[in-house]
Amino acid sequence: MKEKIDFATVAGIIAGVGLLVGAIMMGGSLGMFINIPSILIVFGGTAAATLINFPMFEVVGVIRVLPRAFKASYTEPSTIMRQIIHLCGEAKKQGVLGLEAHTAKINNRFFQTAIGMVVDGLDPDHVTSTLRLQNMTIRERHKTGRMLLESAGTWAPAFGMIGTLIGLIQMMANMEDPSQIGPQMAIALLTTFYGAVLANLIFLPMAGKLKRLTEIEILTNSIIIEGVVGIQTGAAPTVLEGRLKSYLETTRQADKIKPDGKASEEV
Amino acid sequence: MKEKIDFATVAGIIAGVGLLVGAIMMGGSLGMFINIPSILIVFGGTAAATLINFPMFEVVGVIRVLPRAFKASYTEPSTIMRQIIHLCGEAKKQGVLGLEAHTAKINNRFFQTAIGMVVDGLDPDHVTSTLRLQNMTIRERHKTGRMLLESAGTWAPAFGMIGTLIGLIQMMANMEDPSQIGPQMAIALLTTFYGAVLANLIFLPMAGKLKRLTEIEILTNSIIIEGVVGIQTGAAPTVLEGRLKSYLETTRQADKIKPDGKASEEV
Amino acid sequence: MKEKIDFATVAGIIAGVGLLVGAIMMGGSLGMFINIPSILIVFGGTAAATLINFPMFEVVGVIRVLPRAFKASYTEPSTIMRQIIHLCGEAKKQGVLGLEAHTAKINNRFFQTAIGMVVDGLDPDHVTSTLRLQNMTIRERHKTGRMLLESAGTWAPAFGMIGTLIGLIQMMANMEDPSQIGPQMAIALLTTFYGAVLANLIFLPMAGKLKRLTEIEILTNSIIIEGVVGIQTGAAPTVLEGRLKSYLETTRQADKIKPDGKASEEV
Amino acid sequence: MKEKIDFATVAGIIAGVGLLVGAIMMGGSLGMFINIPSILIVFGGTAAATLINFPMFEVVGVIRVLPRAFKASYTEPSTIMRQIIHLCGEAKKQGVLGLEAHTAKINNRFFQTAIGMVVDGLDPDHVTSTLRLQNMTIRERHKTGRMLLESAGTWAPAFGMIGTLIGLIQMMANMEDPSQIGPQMAIALLTTFYGAVLANLIFLPMAGKLKRLTEIEILTNSIIIEGVVGIQTGAAPTVLEGRLKSYLETTRQADKIKPDGKASEEV
Amino acid sequence: MKEKIDFATVAGIIAGVGLLVGAIMMGGSLGMFINIPSILIVFGGTAAATLINFPMFEVVGVIRVLPRAFKASYTEPSTIMRQIIHLCGEAKKQGVLGLEAHTAKINNRFFQTAIGMVVDGLDPDHVTSTLRLQNMTIRERHKTGRMLLESAGTWAPAFGMIGTLIGLIQMMANMEDPSQIGPQMAIALLTTFYGAVLANLIFLPMAGKLKRLTEIEILTNSIIIEGVVGIQTGAAPTVLEGRLKSYLETTRQADKIKPDGKASEEV
Repeated sequence: MKEKIDFATVAGIIAGVGLLVGAIMMGGSLGMFINIPSILIVFGGTAAATLINFPMFEVVGVIRVLPRAFKASYTEPSTIMRQIIHLCGEAKKQGVLGLEAHTAKINNRFFQTAIGMVVDGLDPDHVTSTLRLQNMTIRERHKTGRMLLESAGTWAPAFGMIGTLIGLIQMMANMEDPSQIGPQMAIALLTTFYGAVLANLIFLPMAGKLKRLTEIEILTNSIIIEGVVGIQTGAAPTVLEGRLKSYLETTRQADKIKPDGKASEEV
Repeated sequence: MKEKIDFATVAGIIAGVGLLVGAIMMGGSLGMFINIPSILIVFGGTAAATLINFPMFEVVGVIRVLPRAFKASYTEPSTIMRQIIHLCGEAKKQGVLGLEAHTAKINNRFFQTAIGMVVDGLDPDHVTSTLRLQNMTIRERHKTGRMLLESAGTWAPAFGMIGTLIGLIQMMANMEDPSQIGPQMAIALLTTFYGAVLANLIFLPMAGKLKRLTEIEILTNSIIIEGVVGIQTGAAPTVLEGRLKSYLETTRQADKIKPDGKASEEV
Repeated sequence: MKEKIDFATVAGIIAGVGLLVGAIMMGGSLGMFINIPSILIVFGGTAAATLINFPMFEVVGVIRVLPRAFKASYTEPSTIMRQIIHLCGEAKKQGVLGLEAHTAKINNRFFQTAIGMVVDGLDPDHVTSTLRLQNMTIRERHKTGRMLLESAGTWAPAFGMIGTLIGLIQMMANMEDPSQIGPQMAIALLTTFYGAVLANLIFLPMAGKLKRLTEIEILTNSIIIEGVVGIQTGAAPTVLEGRLKSYLETTRQADKIKPDGKASEEV
Repeated sequence: MKEKIDFATVAGIIAGVGLLVGAIMMGGSLGMFINIPSILIVFGGTAAATLINFPMFEVVGVIRVLPRAFKASYTEPSTIMRQIIHLCGEAKKQGVLGLEAHTAKINNRFFQTAIGMVVDGLDPDHVTSTLRLQNMTIRERHKTGRMLLESAGTWAPAFGMIGTLIGLIQMMANMEDPSQIGPQMAIALLTTFYGAVLANLIFLPMAGKLKRLTEIEILTNSIIIEGVVGIQTGAAPTVLEGRLKSYLETTRQADKIKPDGKASEEV
Repeated sequence: MKEKIDFATVAGIIAGVGLLVGAIMMGGSLGMFINIPSILIVFGGTAAATLINFPMFEVVGVIRVLPRAFKASYTEPSTIMRQIIHLCGEAKKQGVLGLEAHTAKINNRFFQTAIGMVVDGLDPDHVTSTLRLQNMTIRERHKTGRMLLESAGTWAPAFGMIGTLIGLIQMMANMEDPSQIGPQMAIALLTTFYGAVLANLIFLPMAGKLKRLTEIEILTNSIIIEGVVGIQTGAAPTVLEGRLKSYLETTRQADKIKPDGKASEEV
């Protein structure tokens, strides 16, 4: 599938950072919020704890996986469903061998693999069990990235607090000049601010995105497996549509129920 | 089912907002609690983190699902039970085909579908397995809305704290005029206030409602499945009633136990 | 079973409230701790969030269930065990029909139902499966009350904090009279105090009690099921006693091990 | 097993209390940290919440179980393993009847019971299933004590905070004499201090010990069951040793791997 | 396997400590952050609570296991996979007996054991079940070390707070000299600082590393078991490679998909 930039992630980060910069500039200069030692404590501390928490090869590996959260690499379940219904109709007309011409147009790799196996005439049971095994291991494979972001989302506020404690202790040990208490407190609080922003605008929401994308991929693959079973057993497109719909949102499903009360057909 | 407005949700939100507005006005003017930049930080930050956390199509989808929390779209389990007992009696008198006339009066869609399948004379095993599969996927389908509200309930207080940190840092860096410390602290605390109210009066209780409605729907559907099995196997209404009762609250069940000690009949 | 007041719950609430009132009065007047607007915010906010979180019919239903936490409606597992051993001996002497005379004296409804089924001569497999099904649904039926109390235990401190934020913001926005800072802070903190007391002395411990009573009921019913199986299969009272003992506390069990080392007999 | 005092628990409590007393006395007198009303609020409040949370008979029962956390009543898994290997060899030489002489020397009751069953010539399947059932119910039987300590570890800091709130509110409502603010704050903070020490030095670590002892007992019993199966089926002591080793720590296991590379024999 | 020092853990701890020392020295002297009584409270309190929480033999045992977190004792899953494919090819050429020459070169002990069993000509089912049993008990065996570090990561901040409470109470009870308030506050906050650094730079990340290493070991062993099954059943190296790849990261897997669209071969 051609991976285009995921609008939501990029828009969210730009909007969030923009909002905070805007709010800061309404109340004073932005420079007041930039402090190199504070940045070092929060970023460095988070990086250090992450290195201790994960083996080196995983840290390196995740850096390669992270950009996925910015790419719209998932396929909407409803799009996949339409494609399955379409291919099911084609298979009825031309036989499963006729699906070969359509394989190239599929932009979901799991679906492409599955249809390839059908075209190759593999045994339905073998196709299903192979696809199911692949679908089951997805959660495990995507876990490292999510875990690393989640733990970074824990270390960032912790080192933010540690930095603030350092600043507070130094300020309190030397309170000769009372006029310096305010500015020193301000600097001390900066690390807490950095930690909170990093965790709540970057690490934790991106961990959430990776988790959600994994769940969507598993759901999409379940629909694909169900659909491929239907295509191989020669199910009628309308029957297959009814079966696949139970995986989608109730509300959307409800939209398509005909008002003539024949709800039972839907099943 | 005709969806009427859910009294509890609407009453809760109106009462909660009213209480807070009343409490605020007893201690001063309401205007003191409205601050556009603070609102932007909390609402905007929560929206930004939500966009990063969820794919765009899900955010859009949930906005369509949310109004359900305000609609009384569930059926009370005890109401469903009475309808099942009634239909069971009718089936005894007129045969399952006689249930067709009653289908239109059922206002629970799952029940309507189930009775439709019975009237169509489908095989009992097929009916049960189809209904059970549908009931099992409900939790998954309703998950997105609940997850989105729950994560918004996490981001709102976090950005409330971030906004307060921004205000505190700015205040402390410029403490020339001590008479301004109080009002500046007040404004700084507003974002924490917004975050706490949003999370605890809107996001988290509504996520709880969606979760509860899903559980009630699953319980109701379990009762319906058990009831339809009873109707298809021609169980006596009183026997079916005894079986269905074990799904309901102990206290209510206890109310109906006759004082003559024949508790064993109930089972 | 005759439901007498549960001493522990009542004693705990009276002692807890008494302690707090006493501690307050040692440091000043009680009146200082009573503030109508603060009470409204905490109680009203908690009620509002609860209404949003749960459907109306469940809120109403739970109010009827709550008094159970104050009633000693459970039977101690060791009491049930003694009754089972006794009935097992009677069944040996007079046959299971002879148990009918003893049914009325049993004050645990589940046990009474079970013995009733035995006396009615129902098939042992049917008795076991019916009782097991009933025991399995108990946790689900008692869940609503516990969940409602637990969520109230979350909302109460949250609205306590919201009330304190309102008070702090108002105090800080109008700091003309420094002598009023203390008393205003005191009133602001009252909502946090109310929220903490409500959650930790009422909502959360009572949710804990409901949870514990459910677990004890399930354990007691498991012992009853095991015992009824033994009675129906004509087990010797001493053998049955050995089997039932494995459900009880190790320490109590240990008390009864004879010092002659024949521990193996116990099994 | 002769129950001797568990050195770790006693040493931990004495060291922890000693450290705190020492630290306090380095900075002033100990008397400043003793305040009867504060003690009443924290201890009394924790006791009250515990009474509400648990039925009376369980509270009484746990008080009898608690001393176990101070007693070294567990057997180290490695000790049990050595005894099993030894008895396995004896059974090879003298037959299982010859184990009777060794029964008295076993100081683990579960092991003694198990060997007793072997000596009595009971059916291997019956022995295994009886022991497995007993091992499965252990977690449930030990749960009450752990749950009670864990919930006390929740109530203690909560009532510590409630006591501090009472003190703060009283102090702020009457700030006539500024020189009294410090000492009053000190007293207000005492309840938070008591709650934190009670939870983190007594309740939570002891709950952790009970949990750990239960897990060790279950692991030990699993080793015993595996060993008894081996003894009854006449396994060679070296083969049995290999099988039992997989339950123990990798590091210890690694220590015993011979350097000649015959790691496969170990399995 | 030759155990070399794990670069990530050592680098993380050195970088983290270095950063904090650097940040402290930029704002003043390091000596201000060293206070013997504060160190005693946090370290001593954490040690005391750990002793109460775990039996003595486990505390001693974990001290021997801990150095593992500093050693690169794991094998990267991708390295293992290459070795399996290689051995699979060798087995095809020379038969499984021919693998004996390669056993010595394998530096993963579980893999070595597994290949040893294959060379010994043991029954495939027996090999698989033995290896699976060993893999299943790994999590249990490694649990003690992780639990001990996790609980130390809980006690450290708790005793940090207790130490700060002691300092605050002493300071407030004797506020004769206002110029001493700052320095005394600074010392009081030191214990909170120690607790936060110990938990977030040492205990919790190292617990995370132990957990991660256990998961990697289990994953690696699963790949090894799958690979040994393939070798014993004489699978073609390319087929085996396809099967093993599903255990690895999607991104890496994607890298190796040939652009000619024959994705189906991969399965």
